Amino acid sequence: MTVSNRQLRLASRPSGLPEPTDFTVTREPVPEPGNGEFVVEVTHVSIDPAMRGWMNDVRSYLPPVGIGEVMRAGAIGRVAASAHPGFAVGDWVSGFFGVQEYAVSDGHGVRRVDRSVAPLPTHLGALGGTGLTAYFGLFDVGRPGPGDTVVVSGAAGAVGSVAGQLARIHGCRVIGIAGGPDKCRRLVEELRFDAAIDYQNQDVAAELRRLAPGGMDVYFDNVGGDVLDAVLTRLARGARVVICGAISQYNAERVQGPRNYLMLLVARASMTGMLVLDYVDRYPEAIGRLASWLHAGELVAREEVVHGTVEDFVPVLRRLFTGANTGKLVLALDH
Amino acid sequence: MTVSNRQLRLASRPSGLPEPTDFTVTREPVPEPGNGEFVVEVTHVSIDPAMRGWMNDVRSYLPPVGIGEVMRAGAIGRVAASAHPGFAVGDWVSGFFGVQEYAVSDGHGVRRVDRSVAPLPTHLGALGGTGLTAYFGLFDVGRPGPGDTVVVSGAAGAVGSVAGQLARIHGCRVIGIAGGPDKCRRLVEELRFDAAIDYQNQDVAAELRRLAPGGMDVYFDNVGGDVLDAVLTRLARGARVVICGAISQYNAERVQGPRNYLMLLVARASMTGMLVLDYVDRYPEAIGRLASWLHAGELVAREEVVHGTVEDFVPVLRRLFTGANTGKLVLALDH
Repeated sequence: MTVSNRQLRLASRPSGLPEPTDFTVTREPVPEPGNGEFVVEVTHVSIDPAMRGWMNDVRSYLPPVGIGEVMRAGAIGRVAASAHPGFAVGDWVSGFFGVQEYAVSDGHGVRRVDRSVAPLPTHLGALGGTGLTAYFGLFDVGRPGPGDTVVVSGAAGAVGSVAGQLARIHGCRVIGIAGGPDKCRRLVEELRFDAAIDYQNQDVAAELRRLAPGGMDVYFDNVGGDVLDAVLTRLARGARVVICGAISQYNAERVQGPRNYLMLLVARASMTGMLVLDYVDRYPEAIGRLASWLHAGELVAREEVVHGTVEDFVPVLRRLFTGANTGKLVLALDH
Repeated sequence: MTVSNRQLRLASRPSGLPEPTDFTVTREPVPEPGNGEFVVEVTHVSIDPAMRGWMNDVRSYLPPVGIGEVMRAGAIGRVAASAHPGFAVGDWVSGFFGVQEYAVSDGHGVRRVDRSVAPLPTHLGALGGTGLTAYFGLFDVGRPGPGDTVVVSGAAGAVGSVAGQLARIHGCRVIGIAGGPDKCRRLVEELRFDAAIDYQNQDVAAELRRLAPGGMDVYFDNVGGDVLDAVLTRLARGARVVICGAISQYNAERVQGPRNYLMLLVARASMTGMLVLDYVDRYPEAIGRLASWLHAGELVAREEVVHGTVEDFVPVLRRLFTGANTGKLVLALDH
């Protein structure tokens, strides 16, 4: 193959919101796959809040992306060449292929994608890392019972919108927290949340008190910051707080810790961090259930697909942090 | 009875460290007990960090002490008069009798104290709320396994010193965090902790890295603030953080939330609040085990007993917040 591969490489560690100048675009020839390898033509790149953390040089659940390395990203693509017995040319696959047009893989961590089940972007969203995060975070860490009151922040976002719907499917009362009246309207009308709170224009703690005087049994937190502090004041006895993310803090110079964390003591509540990667053995179970809810119309998956090149990664990523997107954000690569 | 009862009443809500002027001392005649009541002559008042929180007008696990009310306190005393079938004059009892010389009780929440098992102050310490908090916080919330690394802050204090010893008895490796070389020496030499870190003179995170490179499995936190933040950076995968208290924050204008709380996500760890009052049905089980460890010499109970009157409550309480005491602080009332 003599095709050229455009790649986005981390050039410097961002401070605050990532800038295009924090990255460089390089071109190199797409190599032939070695024995046991295959080449993927990347078509869809998953845009996730966690990417911001991967750019920092700190100890975390994955090593930081090195300076000069291709930016890490979950992605979907089609096998374009293969010397691997398990993957044939034309297969659709999902894996950490990075922000680049072609990736070489040995199959490690790669899952097959069935296009007959759902469109490709949905395999990055409700049937991908996003839906899996919501599924395991809610059911395994939050452990709601039917009738419980479940609050989800970042509720119009990729993970939050699925988590809230799963709680509703499970028979819970669901309150979503999102920014702005349009997102809040959508939560109630389209995703059938029981209620929504607009944190930009409403007093979150006061609204929670009004909507659920008995307190929250489960809080699925995607945002951190002031919203987390407000919900902590309204926990029911024995509540479970799921720490899935903290998008309000990822670009902060100094993380704002939850000042109301002692409400965990008052409520005998817990706050637990979760990572979807720990549940890889159970992905098939979860994807099967998510797909059946999707097909039954119980679960609404919405993706926001932006077409562009690897050079559009930074402006698309920034949409996450300005609250511009609803649903799963996907960069579809024009080759 | 025409005996007079000196009582300490909350006069105003303290801001920061409580001052003597936040309280008034009143005298009133000790009443005759009504039917089903008894009068306790209070001999020992338990001095606890949680008392600071009870003075604030905020929602918590118990209502705040009202202005003009006798200051709430766990205490021990002797029944001086009784019209209750279950309590006879001369019985030694423990309960929330308050900072006063005599208390009238209907027996609710009152436990009998067996002086043959241990001296009276120990029934407020290792065999009282202190030991029970350590027992249930460690075993039920922290859930260490033998061989686990357990870190305890406020380790020279009442609850911390028992929690660390229980972890040692359970077969864990125990690291205590305390203020100053004297307390640290005592943790290792007298209480047989495996190691101690002096947070006033050492870098807590660096010492934890050195002493336990594999990270902490359980962290029993009594202090909050910077020490909590340091330990959060050293959690092992799946670690349990027990939020028992936050003495560094009780007098703060604004609580310092744990800025490193996202390490819960990195470590897939949990942070859980606990209150001993939830375990009242299991107190006999715990007291039995604590007493047997005490008699076997496995558990060392140390109390610091200060003799005085109800007027000495504030200066004695302040010792907790200046780190002056080691072990359980008790005010023995001179009548």
